[in-house]
Amino acid sequence: MSCTGKMLIGQQAVDGSSRIIHAINPATGERLDPGYAGGTAADVEKAAQLAWDAFDVYRETSLEDRAVFLETIANEIEAIGGDLIQRAVAESGLPQVRIEGERSRTCGQLRLFANVVRAGEWLDARIDPALPERKPMARVDLRQRHIALGPVAVFGASNFPLAFSVAGGDTASALAAGCPVIVKAHSAHPGTSELVGRAVQKAVAQCRLPEGVFSVLFGSGSDIGAALVADHRIKAVGFTGSRSGGTALMKIAQQRQEPIPVYAEMSSINPVFLFPAALKARAEMLAAGFVSSLNMGAGQFCTNPGLVIAEKSEALDTFVAQVGERIMQSAAQTMLTPGIHDAYQHGVSRLFRHDKVREVARGQACEGPNQCQSALFVTTAADFMADKTLQEEVFGATSLVVECDDGTQVKQVAEMLEGQLTATLQVDDDDIDAARQLLPTLERRAGRLLANSWPTGVEVGHAIVHGGPYPSTSDSRTTSVGSAAIFRFLRPVCYQALPDELLPEALKESNPLKLKRLYDGKRES
Amino acid sequence: MSCTGKMLIGQQAVDGSSRIIHAINPATGERLDPGYAGGTAADVEKAAQLAWDAFDVYRETSLEDRAVFLETIANEIEAIGGDLIQRAVAESGLPQVRIEGERSRTCGQLRLFANVVRAGEWLDARIDPALPERKPMARVDLRQRHIALGPVAVFGASNFPLAFSVAGGDTASALAAGCPVIVKAHSAHPGTSELVGRAVQKAVAQCRLPEGVFSVLFGSGSDIGAALVADHRIKAVGFTGSRSGGTALMKIAQQRQEPIPVYAEMSSINPVFLFPAALKARAEMLAAGFVSSLNMGAGQFCTNPGLVIAEKSEALDTFVAQVGERIMQSAAQTMLTPGIHDAYQHGVSRLFRHDKVREVARGQACEGPNQCQSALFVTTAADFMADKTLQEEVFGATSLVVECDDGTQVKQVAEMLEGQLTATLQVDDDDIDAARQLLPTLERRAGRLLANSWPTGVEVGHAIVHGGPYPSTSDSRTTSVGSAAIFRFLRPVCYQALPDELLPEALKESNPLKLKRLYDGKRES
Repeated sequence: MSCTGKMLIGQQAVDGSSRIIHAINPATGERLDPGYAGGTAADVEKAAQLAWDAFDVYRETSLEDRAVFLETIANEIEAIGGDLIQRAVAESGLPQVRIEGERSRTCGQLRLFANVVRAGEWLDARIDPALPERKPMARVDLRQRHIALGPVAVFGASNFPLAFSVAGGDTASALAAGCPVIVKAHSAHPGTSELVGRAVQKAVAQCRLPEGVFSVLFGSGSDIGAALVADHRIKAVGFTGSRSGGTALMKIAQQRQEPIPVYAEMSSINPVFLFPAALKARAEMLAAGFVSSLNMGAGQFCTNPGLVIAEKSEALDTFVAQVGERIMQSAAQTMLTPGIHDAYQHGVSRLFRHDKVREVARGQACEGPNQCQSALFVTTAADFMADKTLQEEVFGATSLVVECDDGTQVKQVAEMLEGQLTATLQVDDDDIDAARQLLPTLERRAGRLLANSWPTGVEVGHAIVHGGPYPSTSDSRTTSVGSAAIFRFLRPVCYQALPDELLPEALKESNPLKLKRLYDGKRES
Repeated sequence: MSCTGKMLIGQQAVDGSSRIIHAINPATGERLDPGYAGGTAADVEKAAQLAWDAFDVYRETSLEDRAVFLETIANEIEAIGGDLIQRAVAESGLPQVRIEGERSRTCGQLRLFANVVRAGEWLDARIDPALPERKPMARVDLRQRHIALGPVAVFGASNFPLAFSVAGGDTASALAAGCPVIVKAHSAHPGTSELVGRAVQKAVAQCRLPEGVFSVLFGSGSDIGAALVADHRIKAVGFTGSRSGGTALMKIAQQRQEPIPVYAEMSSINPVFLFPAALKARAEMLAAGFVSSLNMGAGQFCTNPGLVIAEKSEALDTFVAQVGERIMQSAAQTMLTPGIHDAYQHGVSRLFRHDKVREVARGQACEGPNQCQSALFVTTAADFMADKTLQEEVFGATSLVVECDDGTQVKQVAEMLEGQLTATLQVDDDDIDAARQLLPTLERRAGRLLANSWPTGVEVGHAIVHGGPYPSTSDSRTTSVGSAAIFRFLRPVCYQALPDELLPEALKESNPLKLKRLYDGKRES
């Protein structure tokens, strides 16, 4: 399958008519064809109307039909074969094996949501049967289920061109919930976006769904993206990217006549707490694990460990020295885009020039365009707490070690951290009591707490949380990865005394979907 | 128990120092003692810090302890006895039997949440066990539970001085979730607020909880209320009141450094659709039921039926005439406050003066201060659709009948309605097909759909939804009444590979809480 440079609006392939975007191969600096002309307000209008027209039908597809649709998308993505892998590698500079892994993750994710849809727990069906004899007042029959919010705008992320993009977690969970999706493709990987978009488009046709269930638009975020979020037919937004991008969309969404929820996953520095006994027992091992997590994907993971917090000690010195040595041996890596590379350089030199921060090490010299050197810096807790800018994310393989005087200061640092996606504890048996003291703080500060593992790598399952307090995300009440992500796109509707023939399947007295409903407050078995 | 005029900050009774508020007995116009001096920024600061200090302890109370606390609140409210009833009657102008009913509802609601807490489903405990042998990558152990968001600011509503006020649904659900609560008492019923607040305060002491779990402040919304919502220690807001009040709080919450969720239940005109066969079969019965719902509590219910939509017919004429007659016989009723009474007069005269609206009837003349006459108006669908101001809520016992040419026009009117708490269908067997056509529209427009009942009266149970699309509420994804209201104040936290001794009870391998957890995607039985 080859790229055509067209947007996908329903079942049509449409030429854009605003500024042309070309992907850049960051490894070579080469401009990739074809160009993608951006959409206009008229394209947003058309996609939004199609999505709106599709909504009532799509949200009432049977559980089985919707699950099969998600599985068909996965099949169609796999069917693209090597063309997709090559294009994604060229557009992202990421290694082929990583892109292949990301493809299985993406398809696995779609299949997971197919099973979630089939299981039907997301409907949260509840029945409070009538109690005509109740005193002082009879109770009428009340039934509740969840329905889809409406068409959802999804913004693809640059750093996972498959798993957090056109058919990534936001799209999969929104489609699973019964929401049509309009994707604003990320301008860094338009070809990958088109190829995946065509796979979804095919699945829509194959499953005989209304065409408006899915569209892909190209163009700038401030233009097409903003128009999409402002459109009255869009009822929720999924976004993964920068804090400035996410907060801009939040503002647009709040200023609408009807404000809508924005699920923006934005920025996180993912603190790692090294406890004394663990450090003493295995400083070298920790250094190895840390650097391998830090360097993963050139540090371009939302969960990259950008902050290390520990009490001063010889063992910490050993850790820092070991990390430094490993970083000096780390080969330079190609970043995703020239823009991300520039921002990384800027962030690193900000730390380098900071008079309270000491550079420990830099990685090996760059040998090609858009390459980055890993880096490690150190500061003291007092200096860290005195300057909030030291909490700003440097997106890439750079981390800052914060040396604390004692456990009390570790807790002080933890308390003043901004909201995070993750917080990691490296602990041995003798650290357990100290770790327990810190847990309440970390639960308030992060969505996922890890012990003796590293934050990069987000498992797609039922128990995962990829989310956290602001500003790591715009809404800590949810996750953007894993099966619970479906709840972001649903709302409850209650049916009072409706004749059985008017009730949705999920709530009919005969329970045709065989759901385990909450009946009079008790879970059916 | 008598009123002292003091605020309740933790276990203290504190004199305010800003403007003094006096409740007015709306039935007599009499000023009620004592005066309640409003709080200052220092009082907000003190209550917020106490709440913050209490948070980590309170959110980890055992399920049983927290349930007993909720039950103790209910017992303490009942123990106030007649003093509470008399004060609430004096401050609201509502009949004694209604206030007594509201007290049972309030206490029943607290006991319902006690049972919800004990059942533990709200923890949504999930375990994805480690799969060390999985290829290509091992899976680590992941566990998820929900924890409380943090201290919650609750704004009492004027129209339910017990059930939607100091210890009403917002407070009960926030406390159930593990959130400390600071109430900004409604200035219309400060005495009732103090009495109920003291009951909660007693329960806090009796259950040996940290005092910051609960405080009550007096003062204006734009002053104390705004300061509360802006405070960085407050993590969510519950509000029932006007659209202007709710949207003002939303704005403050969004402009914080850390935006927080606002659950505002604001305004709704609760359309009632009269279908042809039902109208033909029982226009008189429908008229009787409608007027009784309209007049309930002087029309001061959030779910008051302010709009009637039907196809033109002789039966509709009969309905309108019958409603008119019943309204003319309706005695005037005392409204809650002089302000609400003024707004009602203003709203009714706006309809009266509207040149596309015809007055059908008014209720009997007023005989005391702050009394309102019920009223019925009629307009055509074309005129209704041409003027959005006709959708503005008139809070009180007034309704507008919209006459449509045919079923298509009924659907057009339904499609252009703003978000609603409820939508009601009056249907007979022959109407079922037409009703089915309208359902998708109504599901998108309202949180609760009723057939052959009336929207006033909101059952407190598991299946109820008291919520709906904007502007009926600020957040359609939730309900403010019923057991599902607890989910508003929770967020998921994931624990990756944590040693069992660091895991919360809900997630320990031995399952000490005996929860039915989602284990590897399957519900434990």
